[in-house]
Amino acid sequence: MRMYDIIMKKRNGGELSDEEIRYFIEGYTKGEIPDYQVSSLMMAIYFQKMTARETLTLTLAMADSGEKLDLSAVNGIKVDKHSTGGVGDKTSLALTPIVASLGVPVAKMSGRGLGHTGGTIDKLESFPGFSTAISNDTFIKNVNEIGIAIMGQTADLAPADKKLYALRDVTATVDNMSLIASSIMSKKLAAGADSIVLDVKTGSGAFMKTEEDSFALAREMVEIGRNAGRKMSAIISNMDQPLGYAVGNALEVIEAIDTLKGKGPADFTELVYALGAEMLVNGGKAKDRQEATDMISEVISSGKALDKLAEFVKAQGGDPEYVYNTDLFELGKIVVEVKAPKAGYISHIDCDEIGICSLMLGGGRETKESVIDLSVGIRLLHKVGEHVDEGDILGTFYANDNEKCNAAIERFLRAYHIDEDCVPYPNMVIGII
Amino acid sequence: MRMYDIIMKKRNGGELSDEEIRYFIEGYTKGEIPDYQVSSLMMAIYFQKMTARETLTLTLAMADSGEKLDLSAVNGIKVDKHSTGGVGDKTSLALTPIVASLGVPVAKMSGRGLGHTGGTIDKLESFPGFSTAISNDTFIKNVNEIGIAIMGQTADLAPADKKLYALRDVTATVDNMSLIASSIMSKKLAAGADSIVLDVKTGSGAFMKTEEDSFALAREMVEIGRNAGRKMSAIISNMDQPLGYAVGNALEVIEAIDTLKGKGPADFTELVYALGAEMLVNGGKAKDRQEATDMISEVISSGKALDKLAEFVKAQGGDPEYVYNTDLFELGKIVVEVKAPKAGYISHIDCDEIGICSLMLGGGRETKESVIDLSVGIRLLHKVGEHVDEGDILGTFYANDNEKCNAAIERFLRAYHIDEDCVPYPNMVIGII
Repeated sequence: MRMYDIIMKKRNGGELSDEEIRYFIEGYTKGEIPDYQVSSLMMAIYFQKMTARETLTLTLAMADSGEKLDLSAVNGIKVDKHSTGGVGDKTSLALTPIVASLGVPVAKMSGRGLGHTGGTIDKLESFPGFSTAISNDTFIKNVNEIGIAIMGQTADLAPADKKLYALRDVTATVDNMSLIASSIMSKKLAAGADSIVLDVKTGSGAFMKTEEDSFALAREMVEIGRNAGRKMSAIISNMDQPLGYAVGNALEVIEAIDTLKGKGPADFTELVYALGAEMLVNGGKAKDRQEATDMISEVISSGKALDKLAEFVKAQGGDPEYVYNTDLFELGKIVVEVKAPKAGYISHIDCDEIGICSLMLGGGRETKESVIDLSVGIRLLHKVGEHVDEGDILGTFYANDNEKCNAAIERFLRAYHIDEDCVPYPNMVIGII
Repeated sequence: MRMYDIIMKKRNGGELSDEEIRYFIEGYTKGEIPDYQVSSLMMAIYFQKMTARETLTLTLAMADSGEKLDLSAVNGIKVDKHSTGGVGDKTSLALTPIVASLGVPVAKMSGRGLGHTGGTIDKLESFPGFSTAISNDTFIKNVNEIGIAIMGQTADLAPADKKLYALRDVTATVDNMSLIASSIMSKKLAAGADSIVLDVKTGSGAFMKTEEDSFALAREMVEIGRNAGRKMSAIISNMDQPLGYAVGNALEVIEAIDTLKGKGPADFTELVYALGAEMLVNGGKAKDRQEATDMISEVISSGKALDKLAEFVKAQGGDPEYVYNTDLFELGKIVVEVKAPKAGYISHIDCDEIGICSLMLGGGRETKESVIDLSVGIRLLHKVGEHVDEGDILGTFYANDNEKCNAAIERFLRAYHIDEDCVPYPNMVIGII
């Protein structure tokens, strides 16, 4: 078998065999097939597309390219959740204690954030003492005993995907649905869950800007997962503005805790319920969405979900007191209220820009080596569809550096668009697959 | 300017600016732009094509990427000739003495062959003592004094093309008309002639298998050359079977000499006349093709063209006696006559296969390092359209190794197709642009 023939076949519109796809992924992972042949194949795939079978094989080959997480020692149906990412996305923080308190085991391997805001692990480290550097044994033991554990990404999951994505990123071959779907799903399949619930974001702050593309990506990933024998669901959710009101690590943890207390923002709460319902149904704990929704309501009002978060934080070395008293969280020393320059309806918020404001304050990583400031961020007070008067507070900044804060505020004001005409409130959950 | 944006623009069907094309060619030549980005761009070009302007700019940028041959010291209109290559193509050997004897200066930089048979330089080395390792001064002096000189490719002409072609060759991005045309023309433009006459081969033994593609390539190259200010002509000629009857270095030299004596094969003679006429008209020596044809006839029958070859061979250290007595050429010691296995009409000859037979005998290079045996080859006795009886000789093999000879003969017999039905003689010159 020759890589040249594989490129030629795809270029001419042919369908690659399973052997050909595995040959190229294995050869590329080992460094036997050079970047320049792979980038040429990626461009051919961009133009000629891949069939569902080719996409599945590519995903499985990448999932098989490195270590895999073995969750067989965990009791029950393991349900994983994946978000395609956005600004203010603290969903895992609220969602996992809810489903864990209802008997769905949460065994998560998480990464750190790069760009706008921190990742789930960064956010959890807002609890003093909290650590994801736990052994495999502790990880499995905690999941079985308290129902939830989160580990840093120690295993070398899907190294082929890592290498391929880095190449696509510099050769203008990222935006092909099959390649995006196989990249995400290869890591998820290697992470070992029985069921995967996807949160596919759509809108200006999402990777997929249009609903059409978001639905297409969701369908493609659901199909891959089902063909790989996993129980799949996908929620298509709005990312045209930040999720909830908090952007920044500690601020987002506080908002997640508020949500577990039943006092969270409406949009964020709606999304947590929707994703939670899918996880409970897929995990065999609820017979349908309605029953699942009632169960979630119950663990929130009874405080069980909140207690589960405290138990989880404690089990991984964190101080559980913070769960019950969020005033303990350290926030930026410089607090600035940013006011509306004029009256009107908020017609649009440049979502990515709000993420960049948080990054500018020090709340995100510019490079992998950046040190993150967990205490900084922005608490929004108004979102799209709301009316403000001139001088009303649009958002509160928590910073530790005056210069950075001023630069971020300038950018923040440009990201808020205020018009005279009334604008409808956007929907949070746009579709379920 | 970023290579990423250039790839993205072309991928999305945009037209690259002159600045973008020059940026990428200069960066790639210097090694600042990596192979993997260039191969991805080549694949995008394969799908999105290039406009005439983009193709011209690419050609000029590649021609400008290294040294250029300065022919300003040569008197008169310099006319170069280029063949896209085929089996038994000894055209330059007969053509250049003809036009030189008629006052068109021939200042050629030639290469060695790789594959089927030797290149022009290899063939010329069949004359004992002949050398192309001459100084620039001798080169110019010889052209001005005797009208003809051929130099080995010492200058680093169009290095960008060399690098780009090597990459395209392994990434399935060779067969795009603009890229093929710009590759050939970049070297020709760097070689400095005022006019270029192209011999574009078509058929099973040619790079372009169909007439449609051959005409398209010829038109593309003619357009580039004209836009670059050169006088251009192109002949589309048949390469469905070997050109003439001789395949192999010394054998081809003998056939070229026979042609200069007026005793050459009909098809080869027709092609030499057609190309020669274009060169004489473009070189300002004849007012039209008819006059040019008459002039060629005259220098052949008078022996002037033959004398010019002798003069040229002598000027570069070769023994001119061989021109007048071709029995002096050393041929393979093993001579085998291959007979027709059955009676009938020769319906088809697998052209490439005959070239491979010569290669198997040792007459071509498998790799750049191979040592070539100039004395081996095949003299065909019958070609397409001719009738043979069982036992008639199809070809005579000249070899120096029995085993290689037998293997080549086996392959040769499979390449000859003999059918009962009468087949027309193919046309040699298929079109002129």
